[in-house]
Amino acid sequence: MNLDNFFYPSSVAVFGSFRRGAIAYEILRNIVEGGFEGKVIPVNPKGGTVEVTGRTLKIKPRLDEPVEVAIIAIPAKFVPGLIKELKGLTKGAVVISAGFSEVGNAKLEEELVRAAKEAGIRIIGPNCAGIFGVHGKFFGSFEVRVKPGGLALISQSGAFGGAALAMGNEEGVGFSAFVSYGNAADLNESDFLRYFADDKNTKVIALYIEGVKDGRRFMEALRYAASKKPVIILKAGKSESGARAASSHTGSLAGSYEIYRAVFRQVGAIEVEEMEELFDAAKAFEMYEQAGKRVAIITNSGGPGVLATDKLESLGLEIAQLSEKTVKVLRASLPPQCSVKNPIDLIADADYGRYRRVIEVVCQDDNVDALLVICVPPIFIPSEEIARAVIDAKCNKPIIVNFMAGELVREGIRLLESHGIKNFPTPERAARAIAWLAKRQDF
Amino acid sequence: MNLDNFFYPSSVAVFGSFRRGAIAYEILRNIVEGGFEGKVIPVNPKGGTVEVTGRTLKIKPRLDEPVEVAIIAIPAKFVPGLIKELKGLTKGAVVISAGFSEVGNAKLEEELVRAAKEAGIRIIGPNCAGIFGVHGKFFGSFEVRVKPGGLALISQSGAFGGAALAMGNEEGVGFSAFVSYGNAADLNESDFLRYFADDKNTKVIALYIEGVKDGRRFMEALRYAASKKPVIILKAGKSESGARAASSHTGSLAGSYEIYRAVFRQVGAIEVEEMEELFDAAKAFEMYEQAGKRVAIITNSGGPGVLATDKLESLGLEIAQLSEKTVKVLRASLPPQCSVKNPIDLIADADYGRYRRVIEVVCQDDNVDALLVICVPPIFIPSEEIARAVIDAKCNKPIIVNFMAGELVREGIRLLESHGIKNFPTPERAARAIAWLAKRQDF
Repeated sequence: MNLDNFFYPSSVAVFGSFRRGAIAYEILRNIVEGGFEGKVIPVNPKGGTVEVTGRTLKIKPRLDEPVEVAIIAIPAKFVPGLIKELKGLTKGAVVISAGFSEVGNAKLEEELVRAAKEAGIRIIGPNCAGIFGVHGKFFGSFEVRVKPGGLALISQSGAFGGAALAMGNEEGVGFSAFVSYGNAADLNESDFLRYFADDKNTKVIALYIEGVKDGRRFMEALRYAASKKPVIILKAGKSESGARAASSHTGSLAGSYEIYRAVFRQVGAIEVEEMEELFDAAKAFEMYEQAGKRVAIITNSGGPGVLATDKLESLGLEIAQLSEKTVKVLRASLPPQCSVKNPIDLIADADYGRYRRVIEVVCQDDNVDALLVICVPPIFIPSEEIARAVIDAKCNKPIIVNFMAGELVREGIRLLESHGIKNFPTPERAARAIAWLAKRQDF
Repeated sequence: MNLDNFFYPSSVAVFGSFRRGAIAYEILRNIVEGGFEGKVIPVNPKGGTVEVTGRTLKIKPRLDEPVEVAIIAIPAKFVPGLIKELKGLTKGAVVISAGFSEVGNAKLEEELVRAAKEAGIRIIGPNCAGIFGVHGKFFGSFEVRVKPGGLALISQSGAFGGAALAMGNEEGVGFSAFVSYGNAADLNESDFLRYFADDKNTKVIALYIEGVKDGRRFMEALRYAASKKPVIILKAGKSESGARAASSHTGSLAGSYEIYRAVFRQVGAIEVEEMEELFDAAKAFEMYEQAGKRVAIITNSGGPGVLATDKLESLGLEIAQLSEKTVKVLRASLPPQCSVKNPIDLIADADYGRYRRVIEVVCQDDNVDALLVICVPPIFIPSEEIARAVIDAKCNKPIIVNFMAGELVREGIRLLESHGIKNFPTPERAARAIAWLAKRQDF
């Protein structure tokens, strides 16, 4: 099902109050500030004008021309009526308004669904945080805007989604789209999975779910999506108390976690355990589709190299056995204090040339599938130099980078990111990133 | 053994080159910029002066007066000779210089140890990154200076230690001391464990080790330290390849990890699996000595509450069963959409009053041992308000806080930190923090 009208609209109408601070106002502001290039129509029966970031927009008392998508943030009880009015004027509506089944008002939600069906309008929500189509510069939500990239985030929980956008953005994740689907009265996770599976700007899909309503449909959609690109899942409500909490939160039956887990494995989806892992996996898959299991570690400090080694092994990966040729070439070109066994320790004074040469030599070794490059703050040279070595090195295998620590390598990390290379802040998180890439190859 | 002369010296001599960028210069700069209030004497046979942060210091060609500690960053081969010269002038020397047993020069290291013994000087190092006594404003290392607090970090790997200082500092950890002990020719992890166990500014000790030389001595020191305060351990070289890498890095026999693990458990040390966990555990123990297992979760968003619930249960903690009285009081004072079952969902418009009241009510429930307070960016109020509620709430039980996400709650987190309340960036990391506190109580 094509949802381009939601995520790449050429026109949008926003319904609600345009007082500063009101939800509809905040969404309008986000759309305008985000640089949306299509038509934007604020709608409120009172009419008037609204000022957003220096632009004055006329508020229409009612919508009188077709738009590709409507965003609705008016009191719940008026929503079904508005949907009827929109018949013929739009094919898609995002209902932000709360006050439906999530507060026990199932009847109003049924009314909404009926109205939408009769009007030929598909609904996202109600009780949701809205949507982003980042590559269409369409920020149809009050959540913080994010940098463009490859991740489509589908979240059952609006607040989780909002927090994940803000944190992911800071962690260096790039987004293609975001959808908070709330009560899923009409469109739900299965529809979005299928749509983003075919969306050309989406490289990886991440899904936060507590439960689904139609298990069979979900499984088929997940299978389809995972056959096209990596799908990362954070399933909440796994424990007994968690499932109870989820049921009181989204009203969804969390169901037996064992069944979910079996399904995730069967279709090749990547299940993560924690919010932070979701970002890390997304970053890895934004860069690479997959990786093999035999990893070479290149570091300028022994300790972090050992930590990475431990983590890789505990995750079922292999510390690559370097070929004799590689060892020979490394031995000939490195200072005697360097360790040329994997993990390869370039020691504290490693510079641009040493890093770049070693990355290129190791990359050509047939025993190596992926590289983990670690850099602790070099003492006498700026971290940008090492970043530059990673950027310049000719290597056609996945390279996962761990520059630490914080402030001291900030510039290096910035330079890497400007070249599409995402940083993982600890050796263990970098190791886990490779493990996810390898899981995908395994499947 | 009293090591106050190392960590709270009233005078220090630094030996080495004072060219800008040289190791001795960087250490001198760190000492001066760090606000050291004792006497600082740069020593180099060439004499002259050195300018540091606007101050001009006279370089003595040789040390001719007693100091509490000497920091030595001269070529390795000259170190034993210098130690002999220092007889009677100091009782402690930190040898930064590399080029001893770690590069196969065991003989020079033996010579160093012999000279030190004869001179009555205790040695930290050689081949180390130096030491910090943060509360004595003594930054005797080239590593980045850190904020004062309760963590004493003992690191076998200098580079790991340096990275951990920088990252910990950014993560909100406060430090009492740091010691990188390098080759451990004389003083080693056991001495530092015992010393920090009795140091009044140290609330928690963290130890990064790859291996130890004297297992029995280590076990006794660890037992002693863990009987006094929480000891967090990150053991590297756990896997087969990791142990091999460790042996080539610090030359230490990593030994069977199973034995280490049994010892850690037996003495009640807290073993963490990852670098990031080391910071999180340290933060938790800087605030609290321990906690019980029954946790109440208070949140303004359902999803993160469910994630915290899952993680707590998977870590063996309990979601507290609130007393009837608590439920009644909460029900009476909260809007009907709020969930008064644990996790307690205060919903999106929760403000100062709602958070504070609920924290105080829940804190008085005898079924509750600890509180996990979650805050996603409130839509209509600044996060500082919620931070203020946590600060003002009268509660004598451990409260672990998870404010997310990033930029949007930055001011709230800053306010919390200025009141000694450390933030955990995800629900799962906050849950794990409580699990460590509970482990300590269990023991």
